[in-house]
Amino acid sequence: MDRVVLCECFGRDGLQHEPEFVSTATKLELLNAFADAGFRRVEATSYSHPAQVPAFADASEVLAGLPRRDGTAFKATCPNIRAVERAIADQDSGHGVNELSLLVSATEAHTQRNLRTTRAEQWQRVRDMVALADGRFTLVGVISMALGCPFEGDVDPAVVYADFGRFVELGVQLVTIGDTAGLATPPAVRHMFGHLAQEFPQLPAVAHMHDNRGTAIANSLAALDGGCRHFDTSMGGIGGHPAEIRYGTGYTGNACTEDLVNVFEAMGIDTALDLDQVMAASRACERALGRPLRSCVARAGWSSLIADRVKPTADD
Amino acid sequence: MDRVVLCECFGRDGLQHEPEFVSTATKLELLNAFADAGFRRVEATSYSHPAQVPAFADASEVLAGLPRRDGTAFKATCPNIRAVERAIADQDSGHGVNELSLLVSATEAHTQRNLRTTRAEQWQRVRDMVALADGRFTLVGVISMALGCPFEGDVDPAVVYADFGRFVELGVQLVTIGDTAGLATPPAVRHMFGHLAQEFPQLPAVAHMHDNRGTAIANSLAALDGGCRHFDTSMGGIGGHPAEIRYGTGYTGNACTEDLVNVFEAMGIDTALDLDQVMAASRACERALGRPLRSCVARAGWSSLIADRVKPTADD
Repeated sequence: MDRVVLCECFGRDGLQHEPEFVSTATKLELLNAFADAGFRRVEATSYSHPAQVPAFADASEVLAGLPRRDGTAFKATCPNIRAVERAIADQDSGHGVNELSLLVSATEAHTQRNLRTTRAEQWQRVRDMVALADGRFTLVGVISMALGCPFEGDVDPAVVYADFGRFVELGVQLVTIGDTAGLATPPAVRHMFGHLAQEFPQLPAVAHMHDNRGTAIANSLAALDGGCRHFDTSMGGIGGHPAEIRYGTGYTGNACTEDLVNVFEAMGIDTALDLDQVMAASRACERALGRPLRSCVARAGWSSLIADRVKPTADD
Repeated sequence: MDRVVLCECFGRDGLQHEPEFVSTATKLELLNAFADAGFRRVEATSYSHPAQVPAFADASEVLAGLPRRDGTAFKATCPNIRAVERAIADQDSGHGVNELSLLVSATEAHTQRNLRTTRAEQWQRVRDMVALADGRFTLVGVISMALGCPFEGDVDPAVVYADFGRFVELGVQLVTIGDTAGLATPPAVRHMFGHLAQEFPQLPAVAHMHDNRGTAIANSLAALDGGCRHFDTSMGGIGGHPAEIRYGTGYTGNACTEDLVNVFEAMGIDTALDLDQVMAASRACERALGRPLRSCVARAGWSSLIADRVKPTADD
């Protein structure tokens, strides 16, 4: 049976533009629930500047409260050198993360808006961050806008392949392909992941699909078809870019964890997750944010259970 | 370029379990908006018994108010002989529909619940309905629960292929494959449509995918991969079964028109629709129901437009 690894991103990409600050205690409850459910990779927080992304002002407190767990790697996002310095300081205090993600964008216009610099300068920063991290963490390269950009339109896949190659040369352990604005189509995704698996067989690509236009599940499954076995998802399908760099006025969330897990399991693909605990975590996320989120499966139930749940009676 | 035909189902499958009755005038406004947008097939109403589905108590009034339009076929659902009699009476009065859909279900348990009879008896009714219709209408066979049933679990594709063959023998013009409870997976859909295209090349299959578990877009695209070129969709992704035979407690809507149109167009597949008028119709549907519906593209905008809408300025 094929096996996939999902990284639960609720704690970072999910929460980053929530209008209300989620308390550190609630974040810890949720991150532990994700680990309990069997997620082997969990995005825990971001070392963004607290003035820019207030949702993560408590990054170090979250990590201090998070017990090390066998079988679960916690990840933090690092936009710049200062972020890596903070990650190292937390690690020196004995409560750091296992993984850092290092960001580039496939387009100049988005790099300007999101990272306030040029692509060339951002790549120099990434090299400096890798040198500073000095083998202390698993490193995850992230290529945003890899499948279309609202500012520049179509993105040449050759740019993405070249960026992927740069991450390979820098020695990272995974590279994430982000459809940051929900502009990808399944054929383009299938082709890109197929190409990456062939050109860089030594380094897994991660599918990070946003649902701005309702295609996150279809694009995640297209990545699977292309050979991808690593997926970023968010409970309830929440998340995405902060309002000031949102693209248009729409919803910007991640591929929904519950819905992608359900279709994987229905296809006979092993997620290695405990479905009862995934559903418990899903409910905890809705409680934490005080509203129903966007999972369809959270309402309808697992495909694998419904046949048992509603049996016809003899006289039906 | 590949060309697809979408049947807009908002007026029937979409509205059938709306709690508030939508006025006849509003229905007519929406059905005309769908035709204006270029939908070549539009599901207009159902000849269900008004006591069972009050939303369509005005079926004949709707059709009396609907002008015949070149290039648009209007369809009504017919659950039984009485329904076909009403369709004929309306046609005799000069204001009938072009298409009738005739329903069977792939499973006994769902046939019992939805049609209150056995599969054998329902097939006899369908034969009687076809005989009664006597060539006056384009006939569309519908096979519900073709890809999974909440009461019987997995459905043997051989049952669906045999039902499809029965419809072929009866001389219908299209056969709809319904994932009525959102239990299909893309590989199963791709395989089924591929098989149908091979075994019955003379008769187009229609993909009718529900989004109970977030897979309606992925499954519609999997049908396309299998050779399908006809799709049932609903504006805002609304619709599905009435509450008393809902499966579990979840959302039961159709594949969302706006989102499927967007990904088709982004893939270079010709929908022959006017995107501005599709979006105008989408807004009219939300106004009619007084709430935002479930289309992501209605919020985020067409993929083809966003690159033009948000241009970087010189100093960005």
